[in-house]
Amino acid sequence: MAELPTFATPATFMGIARTDRAAKFCIAGMPLDLGTTNRAGARSGPPAIRAASRMLVDGQHPRSWVDPAALDIADIGDFSIALGDIEKSLARIEQQAAGLAHLIGLGGEHGITLPLLRALKKRLGAPVGLVQFDSHLDTWEVNFGQQFAHGSVFYHALNEGLVDPHRMIQVGIRSPVHREVWDWTVAQGVTILTGEDVQLLGPIDVAGRIRETLGLGPAYLSFDIDALDPSCAPGTGTPEIGGLLSWQAQAIVRRLNGIEFVGMDVVEVAPAYDVAEITALAAATMVWEYLSLVGDEPMR
Amino acid sequence: MAELPTFATPATFMGIARTDRAAKFCIAGMPLDLGTTNRAGARSGPPAIRAASRMLVDGQHPRSWVDPAALDIADIGDFSIALGDIEKSLARIEQQAAGLAHLIGLGGEHGITLPLLRALKKRLGAPVGLVQFDSHLDTWEVNFGQQFAHGSVFYHALNEGLVDPHRMIQVGIRSPVHREVWDWTVAQGVTILTGEDVQLLGPIDVAGRIRETLGLGPAYLSFDIDALDPSCAPGTGTPEIGGLLSWQAQAIVRRLNGIEFVGMDVVEVAPAYDVAEITALAAATMVWEYLSLVGDEPMR
Amino acid sequence: MAELPTFATPATFMGIARTDRAAKFCIAGMPLDLGTTNRAGARSGPPAIRAASRMLVDGQHPRSWVDPAALDIADIGDFSIALGDIEKSLARIEQQAAGLAHLIGLGGEHGITLPLLRALKKRLGAPVGLVQFDSHLDTWEVNFGQQFAHGSVFYHALNEGLVDPHRMIQVGIRSPVHREVWDWTVAQGVTILTGEDVQLLGPIDVAGRIRETLGLGPAYLSFDIDALDPSCAPGTGTPEIGGLLSWQAQAIVRRLNGIEFVGMDVVEVAPAYDVAEITALAAATMVWEYLSLVGDEPMR
Amino acid sequence: MAELPTFATPATFMGIARTDRAAKFCIAGMPLDLGTTNRAGARSGPPAIRAASRMLVDGQHPRSWVDPAALDIADIGDFSIALGDIEKSLARIEQQAAGLAHLIGLGGEHGITLPLLRALKKRLGAPVGLVQFDSHLDTWEVNFGQQFAHGSVFYHALNEGLVDPHRMIQVGIRSPVHREVWDWTVAQGVTILTGEDVQLLGPIDVAGRIRETLGLGPAYLSFDIDALDPSCAPGTGTPEIGGLLSWQAQAIVRRLNGIEFVGMDVVEVAPAYDVAEITALAAATMVWEYLSLVGDEPMR
Amino acid sequence: MAELPTFATPATFMGIARTDRAAKFCIAGMPLDLGTTNRAGARSGPPAIRAASRMLVDGQHPRSWVDPAALDIADIGDFSIALGDIEKSLARIEQQAAGLAHLIGLGGEHGITLPLLRALKKRLGAPVGLVQFDSHLDTWEVNFGQQFAHGSVFYHALNEGLVDPHRMIQVGIRSPVHREVWDWTVAQGVTILTGEDVQLLGPIDVAGRIRETLGLGPAYLSFDIDALDPSCAPGTGTPEIGGLLSWQAQAIVRRLNGIEFVGMDVVEVAPAYDVAEITALAAATMVWEYLSLVGDEPMR
Amino acid sequence: MAELPTFATPATFMGIARTDRAAKFCIAGMPLDLGTTNRAGARSGPPAIRAASRMLVDGQHPRSWVDPAALDIADIGDFSIALGDIEKSLARIEQQAAGLAHLIGLGGEHGITLPLLRALKKRLGAPVGLVQFDSHLDTWEVNFGQQFAHGSVFYHALNEGLVDPHRMIQVGIRSPVHREVWDWTVAQGVTILTGEDVQLLGPIDVAGRIRETLGLGPAYLSFDIDALDPSCAPGTGTPEIGGLLSWQAQAIVRRLNGIEFVGMDVVEVAPAYDVAEITALAAATMVWEYLSLVGDEPMR
Repeated sequence: MAELPTFATPATFMGIARTDRAAKFCIAGMPLDLGTTNRAGARSGPPAIRAASRMLVDGQHPRSWVDPAALDIADIGDFSIALGDIEKSLARIEQQAAGLAHLIGLGGEHGITLPLLRALKKRLGAPVGLVQFDSHLDTWEVNFGQQFAHGSVFYHALNEGLVDPHRMIQVGIRSPVHREVWDWTVAQGVTILTGEDVQLLGPIDVAGRIRETLGLGPAYLSFDIDALDPSCAPGTGTPEIGGLLSWQAQAIVRRLNGIEFVGMDVVEVAPAYDVAEITALAAATMVWEYLSLVGDEPMR
Repeated sequence: MAELPTFATPATFMGIARTDRAAKFCIAGMPLDLGTTNRAGARSGPPAIRAASRMLVDGQHPRSWVDPAALDIADIGDFSIALGDIEKSLARIEQQAAGLAHLIGLGGEHGITLPLLRALKKRLGAPVGLVQFDSHLDTWEVNFGQQFAHGSVFYHALNEGLVDPHRMIQVGIRSPVHREVWDWTVAQGVTILTGEDVQLLGPIDVAGRIRETLGLGPAYLSFDIDALDPSCAPGTGTPEIGGLLSWQAQAIVRRLNGIEFVGMDVVEVAPAYDVAEITALAAATMVWEYLSLVGDEPMR
Repeated sequence: MAELPTFATPATFMGIARTDRAAKFCIAGMPLDLGTTNRAGARSGPPAIRAASRMLVDGQHPRSWVDPAALDIADIGDFSIALGDIEKSLARIEQQAAGLAHLIGLGGEHGITLPLLRALKKRLGAPVGLVQFDSHLDTWEVNFGQQFAHGSVFYHALNEGLVDPHRMIQVGIRSPVHREVWDWTVAQGVTILTGEDVQLLGPIDVAGRIRETLGLGPAYLSFDIDALDPSCAPGTGTPEIGGLLSWQAQAIVRRLNGIEFVGMDVVEVAPAYDVAEITALAAATMVWEYLSLVGDEPMR
Repeated sequence: MAELPTFATPATFMGIARTDRAAKFCIAGMPLDLGTTNRAGARSGPPAIRAASRMLVDGQHPRSWVDPAALDIADIGDFSIALGDIEKSLARIEQQAAGLAHLIGLGGEHGITLPLLRALKKRLGAPVGLVQFDSHLDTWEVNFGQQFAHGSVFYHALNEGLVDPHRMIQVGIRSPVHREVWDWTVAQGVTILTGEDVQLLGPIDVAGRIRETLGLGPAYLSFDIDALDPSCAPGTGTPEIGGLLSWQAQAIVRRLNGIEFVGMDVVEVAPAYDVAEITALAAATMVWEYLSLVGDEPMR
Repeated sequence: MAELPTFATPATFMGIARTDRAAKFCIAGMPLDLGTTNRAGARSGPPAIRAASRMLVDGQHPRSWVDPAALDIADIGDFSIALGDIEKSLARIEQQAAGLAHLIGLGGEHGITLPLLRALKKRLGAPVGLVQFDSHLDTWEVNFGQQFAHGSVFYHALNEGLVDPHRMIQVGIRSPVHREVWDWTVAQGVTILTGEDVQLLGPIDVAGRIRETLGLGPAYLSFDIDALDPSCAPGTGTPEIGGLLSWQAQAIVRRLNGIEFVGMDVVEVAPAYDVAEITALAAATMVWEYLSLVGDEPMR
Repeated sequence: MAELPTFATPATFMGIARTDRAAKFCIAGMPLDLGTTNRAGARSGPPAIRAASRMLVDGQHPRSWVDPAALDIADIGDFSIALGDIEKSLARIEQQAAGLAHLIGLGGEHGITLPLLRALKKRLGAPVGLVQFDSHLDTWEVNFGQQFAHGSVFYHALNEGLVDPHRMIQVGIRSPVHREVWDWTVAQGVTILTGEDVQLLGPIDVAGRIRETLGLGPAYLSFDIDALDPSCAPGTGTPEIGGLLSWQAQAIVRRLNGIEFVGMDVVEVAPAYDVAEITALAAATMVWEYLSLVGDEPMR
């Protein structure tokens, strides 16, 4: 065991020392929150998630026995954004994501997923599969008057052919919703598991449904922290009660082996509403679970 | 989708514009907290619940496809109370409740349920059935020396014949309790499901037990927010650990179709102890669930 | 004294019932925060300021003996903004401000002042005098890459001829600053009083300096809540220690009689960082002080 | 220096071990808050003040060199109140105060001062002088419909002849107020120093004014914590900005030597709104200042 | 029902009046936190747990019908520790634990368990069985360079022969861990149930596994509050998501009848990170559950 | 102005990129808090101060026109400490401080000042002058049973000849104190200015007294954040009301020109008790003031 106490961990994700873009796995902050529609502050997510990750530094994952910090991994800092301009920010994020082997994005709002998927499409030349943990569909065509806000991400991702709708599953959905948006989403071929579905099925069956939906081929994991119940993740902008417990999210992700993941993000952590760092810790731990999962898989 | 962002929602419940008492459903705040026995502050519940309800404005319930804000509904503001005088306050609440078609009360402490039940008795001429979500029996004859405090509500309701004990069920009970109070309650004919019962039965069976107990005839739903676990509802005066998770409460209420509900309240939200509005949001969401349930039922 | 307890005050500013735009004084919320550069959340300022104003409802100002709530006054709700688009939002704010007799804006970020000054320029046909309480100059040409963010408001206001620089005074300035920005500001003719100046001069002399600078003609008061010390106003996005105490701000504003004020705003309240409502109460009280000041002056 | 660390101090005021009523100075909690009119929770003041007092245990006052914990002093616990019934509670407090040599009350709301003054009147047979630190006059005849709430204390105290109005001074007044209440108070002979007066006079002159007003004869000190600025005392129910800084309150009280004090209270601490115990610490410290002041005076 | 409201409960555990060491059950605070490795502050646990226990005072356990406050029980205050010196503190704790019939320790960090087990070994002359609720193994040989910190407690307990490894079970384990530490622990004969195991088995089966492992003979229950999920217990120093819900912990402990318990502790409550007292209440309630369990068993 | 928004500032002090020990000014965190005697958590001070310093990145000091981030300066990270062992930690800090040109320490508790002064003594070969901002003397021989805790720092510094008592001044003292400790301190030749002295003298005269006391020769500035009033710095372990306002501390330090400073520390920031980062911001700003002061002085 290291002698460095956790409270003196350097302020990168898990205290990772490398900062170059050549690592197999790159972690980057994306402090964009211009498109949020209720409580503000996801811009402050990246440093909070990094700080909370100090709890995960010392040791291996007790199931996969992978130590994420020991992988070929770098924390490349925060992406530059265009303050006050959503579309320009999305363009910059896409540009900075280009050329990275396997990127894990720390949001910021859910809007950051769109340029990350655009960059993947350019690199892979084909749509990816997608598992989206979320309490909201995020397939609104217009989001309170905005075109590229956090509630429209997957409308665009589907329309732009970035995601294969038949390999797309949404897990934890439970917000009020317009029926036409729901119907449109289903009509594209997307699978929806509501928050109640997750509870009644249990995590093992949910993981089975995800593996089944994503099947073969490259896939992406987008984790909106509001998929979790507000008791587990109060620090977010658009909370909805009745969500996943953190053990359930962990139990599901741990069982997604065999999927060819090519990227991941965790979004919508708003630290101003957090309590004792529990939301940031949940976000950091989901990244840790993901890295423990993909850490011993062959890279695409 | 409306263009108005949620954070600019008018300060009524779900931004409802109507304020007249002629609506089919009327929502009213009842800022009474004189009878609380541990932490104070339920007086500040109504504005907090209204503010948190902004998350529920835009769209339909994803199961019933009812949009509560689109019902024949009004937010009629706060009832006048007599500051510093419990009994006078109860009398005023009863008086203001008279003549309303279907009232949803936002507490305030649990004491407000007594005058609401008195008003119903006067209007209906018969006792109602009752489902009470709560961690406490609230059937003490005397509550720390007080006659009409929040722990004595259902002692009076039963004694005054406002509720039919054989059509009354308490869900989530788990506080320390005097055995004679428990025994008296059971002896009246009341059904008790403890917090642990709810966990071990699961929400579908609990809903079945409630439907079975309430049977036919008018019924009332009283939701003490401390029925929820403190992790889901820290902002309350008399918390007890081991409570319902919010998804369980939602799953139960959604399955109470077929019951002839004539009124509802949600009580004991104490915002000074809340975190990131999660308690207030839970309270608002339980009202939204209730409205989604009764929204397409014929009115009595 | 009214019987309505403060905690049941309707959710308008000071519980004001009128909502029409024909009142002599109109209060409006402006929930814009897209241009903030540090901590987010000024969008949530208006409801917090309104809620805190309940403490001011009952009685008269103990110096001017004006009761602001008894003036010819309305709370006209929140201005519509264009979520995610700063410039479009500024245009909308200007448009909605047009035609109002005397507007008090509740921010939102400082960026809202620009369209309010543009609207005044159109109505009055001439630049106004300005007293700006602030810890920052807000005369950057570019604000972290943004043209119309909260740090560039007065650069534009001066460049567009909305404010007469020789009738403009900034009170409480103390942040780190680029010397060329400071020099440019002074070169325009603007008077700067630093935070330390205010402490060493005392409020009576500061008020004298303001009256002297503003002189005759229409004038505007813009109160950035970060002018106050973080101990008095923690709930803001860009705090700077060493600021004004709330009694000093009050003592200054109370002595600005004789100035022909035509409008006012209070900006940068970020409730997610507030404590026990003290920042929101400070903001509400500054509006109350302003209304007590202008309440018995002849209207322009 | 004791070896017991402050965080292990017993939970009495300053860790005082004696609990009998025969001590020269008796400290008692009075957890009444039924008459509060804005934010609730002063009932929880006594344990919070006691806990915060642990910072004051070890050593002497650095001006008077008195160690309050070493006086002939007891912490006699909390007075019994009648939950839910203001007038009965006042009667009980008066009854329990009878026979004590020199009582320091830890509130609870300001309403507790009335029975304490009644008890003093009975014991002394004559009205006392009074210095009241407060942001509110508390001389309303009716307080939001209540007769014996926290805003009417001194109306009754004056009317019942408990206090000599010509030996009564109010320090820190600044809330909105009804002019007739102000005028009535002044007409009784009471001296009022506003919050601004305190700032402009400075604490040495304020202390002089108090000593002058109280003159000879028994006197009482009532310290409403909202006399302090909300930055120093956020944890209270009816905050008003522009208040005294804590050093000013200390500097004033330290200079009240020569007054024949016969009792004291500190009221309106509402811990649910406190931050890092600073309000409770301010309250505890004012008691410590008072005890340091009266600790070496001859007892009446 | 007593007339004393909960908020006026004396500041001992459950308001217990006895303070002598001759009681059958003795409760003591142990404010040691020198060996914590992430967030500090477990030193403040004892008063917070005692304060929160006021919710449990009035009535009986609704399953066992035991009233813990009515047992032969005393709250003997806080143990003396040696500020700044871990090993000396451990020696003092052991010394003060000697001679007590049945001790319940309120931490403080987990390090306090070691001297409590040493004292038991001396008294009983043989190792005890142990059920440890925890998210961490606490069997590191060295803990961030420290020998006797909170992560090494059971390494020493096993090495010193204080606990019988074949009668030892750890429940809720889920932190990152060094594989050699895990393997060493298992190799000693210790049974490990992970956090996920608890969820998938359910509390009834978990209780069965514990009863089976502990078998006959004296046993000890050590409850690290971080066994609970951070949503239920944010106020702790080394939180790990994916933990037990409070109802699960209660349901397990209630079913541990038949085990010959000789002592218990609840550790790692760090009130500075708590929210609305929920962590402290969880800790107090686990003690209440334990006392309800052992309250009618014959004492060893 | 840089385009990087403050919320994306790298997590070093003021975003400083250099990390080598060869810089003229080196900033280092010292996360020791084993010797704290009331509330724990100063270990978490360094990252909080660094995070808050992002507000100070962009621009120059508005009086000295120095930009601290543009100096020959490095943030060399956190010093290694020996977890759980005070004396070993002090030895390590001294060792790591050796050889640095001009060190600014970010505490951690006040105990870190002792090894920093020891290192200076070794380098300079003579005692330094000292200005100590503090609410406590910190000259106890024994601190609640501890020899090297935060209350004994200057007892040792004086006894070991690290500081010249005739060139030592303490500013802001106001805690309860043992008279023999006070008398001993004065007898050494130390000058004491109480908190009240600072208020009554004003910052300009206080600065004069400091310059006069320190005179010629190398000097050290130790800033215990509890010198500030709890309203300005709630996030600390041993708060005392009646302290300096932040503008006063700034106004004093700005006027300490002409003193030959050779090092500085800011200690006792306990983020768990902070509010909206105001304490951490105050600490960061005091470092910024110090750097602005010494930034254009010739180095020793």
